[in-house]
Amino acid sequence: MIKDYLGADSSSLKGKRFAFLLVIATTDVSLIPGITIAGASPEMTHYTPAADAEFLLEGKCEVIKGIPVSPEGIPTPAIISRASLSLVNTTKLVVDAGAKIKPNVPFITLHGTHGRDIREGSLDVDVANRIIKNGIKLGEELSNSYELLVIGESVPAGTTTALSVLLALGYDALNKVSSASPRNPHELKNKIALEAVKGLEGKDLISKLAKVSDPMLIGVAGIVIGFKGKVLLAGGTQMVAAASIIKEIDKSRLSEVIIGTTRWIIEDKSADILGLAKQVGVSVSAAMLDFSSSKYEGLRMYEKGYVKEGVGAGGSAIMAMLNGYSSKDILRKVEEIYSSLISEKSIFSS
Amino acid sequence: MIKDYLGADSSSLKGKRFAFLLVIATTDVSLIPGITIAGASPEMTHYTPAADAEFLLEGKCEVIKGIPVSPEGIPTPAIISRASLSLVNTTKLVVDAGAKIKPNVPFITLHGTHGRDIREGSLDVDVANRIIKNGIKLGEELSNSYELLVIGESVPAGTTTALSVLLALGYDALNKVSSASPRNPHELKNKIALEAVKGLEGKDLISKLAKVSDPMLIGVAGIVIGFKGKVLLAGGTQMVAAASIIKEIDKSRLSEVIIGTTRWIIEDKSADILGLAKQVGVSVSAAMLDFSSSKYEGLRMYEKGYVKEGVGAGGSAIMAMLNGYSSKDILRKVEEIYSSLISEKSIFSS
Repeated sequence: MIKDYLGADSSSLKGKRFAFLLVIATTDVSLIPGITIAGASPEMTHYTPAADAEFLLEGKCEVIKGIPVSPEGIPTPAIISRASLSLVNTTKLVVDAGAKIKPNVPFITLHGTHGRDIREGSLDVDVANRIIKNGIKLGEELSNSYELLVIGESVPAGTTTALSVLLALGYDALNKVSSASPRNPHELKNKIALEAVKGLEGKDLISKLAKVSDPMLIGVAGIVIGFKGKVLLAGGTQMVAAASIIKEIDKSRLSEVIIGTTRWIIEDKSADILGLAKQVGVSVSAAMLDFSSSKYEGLRMYEKGYVKEGVGAGGSAIMAMLNGYSSKDILRKVEEIYSSLISEKSIFSS
Repeated sequence: MIKDYLGADSSSLKGKRFAFLLVIATTDVSLIPGITIAGASPEMTHYTPAADAEFLLEGKCEVIKGIPVSPEGIPTPAIISRASLSLVNTTKLVVDAGAKIKPNVPFITLHGTHGRDIREGSLDVDVANRIIKNGIKLGEELSNSYELLVIGESVPAGTTTALSVLLALGYDALNKVSSASPRNPHELKNKIALEAVKGLEGKDLISKLAKVSDPMLIGVAGIVIGFKGKVLLAGGTQMVAAASIIKEIDKSRLSEVIIGTTRWIIEDKSADILGLAKQVGVSVSAAMLDFSSSKYEGLRMYEKGYVKEGVGAGGSAIMAMLNGYSSKDILRKVEEIYSSLISEKSIFSS
């Protein structure tokens, strides 16, 4: 089941010719201890986007052993995306907006760079401009092939850069972004973000983005601005930040955009995606996934607030559901993939 | 008008959902004086594929001033490709199989490297394997979006590497590959190629390819093997070499492949594309382009044996013609682009 919020009409996406884009990036924010669980250790988080991309396309990873897991061993949501997209035979394109580690699969480069710590400044201004320009070009080219783009992301500590972008653009966002952890470290995120946005008032958009954004948010905004059709921004509160950038550059595009996420993000009491989305003026749909009946502990942990979203899991599930698959069908496919990973005994070895 | 040869049925491509892929690569073979005119000087040839890619997508170049030209100032065939594909609103994707200079547009990487001089050895074996593996993956992904791929190339001195591949695979190819020059330097090409293939008898396919192929031929073969639909190999004798690699790996794919080229290649008395294609067992279609009535000297030179093909010009023109456009329509669009380049006075400044 899909639930629509804030005027979203997810049924309008049904039957549209679409591709799935996974936009990856890293920043040094993910090295700050305690800020993210998107990796077995802070150092491993730099490998997570590349590993997610490899897993999405190949069903296995090359840059790491096993697959990306949290310190507790909870598997990457890329499993949900791969499962859902395999049900509907989707073309999956990896887009590198600026990842430190590159995936060993074909990917499209936007000529970005890895982001630094946002307190010092994430990107050079010319790099931010280059990412957005190349994003626009890519979106334009894809307009001739697709009526809809489903755009997912993999950016460890990406909610902190998202928070910073939202603050820099004037939104009331403190304590409202989600986390892959059941214990959302708001205090730490707020502290980092508030320090990063200091002194940005009055600066132009690209200077603000270069200072505090991760490369993914800028790349996604560019793609959406260049693309002519509908867009499902497949992610949680990070995608609200992407929408806020789109709004600054071309407000008219927002009417064609829906944020597609998971029930776990909507129900996340430690965050407020709908409040944020309402401020920005973007609608939201959610795949009502339910893993509580799963035979696997690692998947049942999703019901306890772990992971929640990422790698376009929610949006991918929405596309599967629009094509008639239920949450149970998706869970069955996810379990099939998960069980083969466990039998390889490689899942916890990263 | 389109002419079909060797059993080709170009009408079977009509109405198919397709994308255009430009696969670029360079080797140090293009630095050998006299071997190619795909650049204003031997050193400039390394910039030509990146500049072609930029011109195809943007209508202007960033890595060089102006656009790629021969030493005589004859413009790149990318003009024909851009003109033809704009008539039919095609998605254009740039694929880097191993170009020394990278284009400043979004491109898909196959993780290849620039090829060395083939007399010493073009690529490391693991690089050749990586290119083919990533090509296959890309082809597989695109299968869910398209029924047809039109694949062009930009590789300076690419007919010499093509000749070498054909010789290494046992074909009678000496004096049969085309040239962008009206004075086809067969003697020089034969000498380089014969030296390059020495000692390759009995070696396995990938070792042969790593020694004498450019990265493009390997990448294109991979893409075609991974892709499930029809393929128009948009190029001249180089694409026969690509077909010969495909035949070695998966002969069944050849029945879905047509080489799409220009009248200028078919009528090239210094080469024998049909003889080569017959040996390999691949069919050929040609766009009967005629620039003799052009008001521009630079375009009329195409009728004097200059350039002839490249950047998928022939295959792009075929796709425009299948959609009802005539050679005159295409010429008019080409002249429109050419005149704007001349008025910018930038065309001869590379």
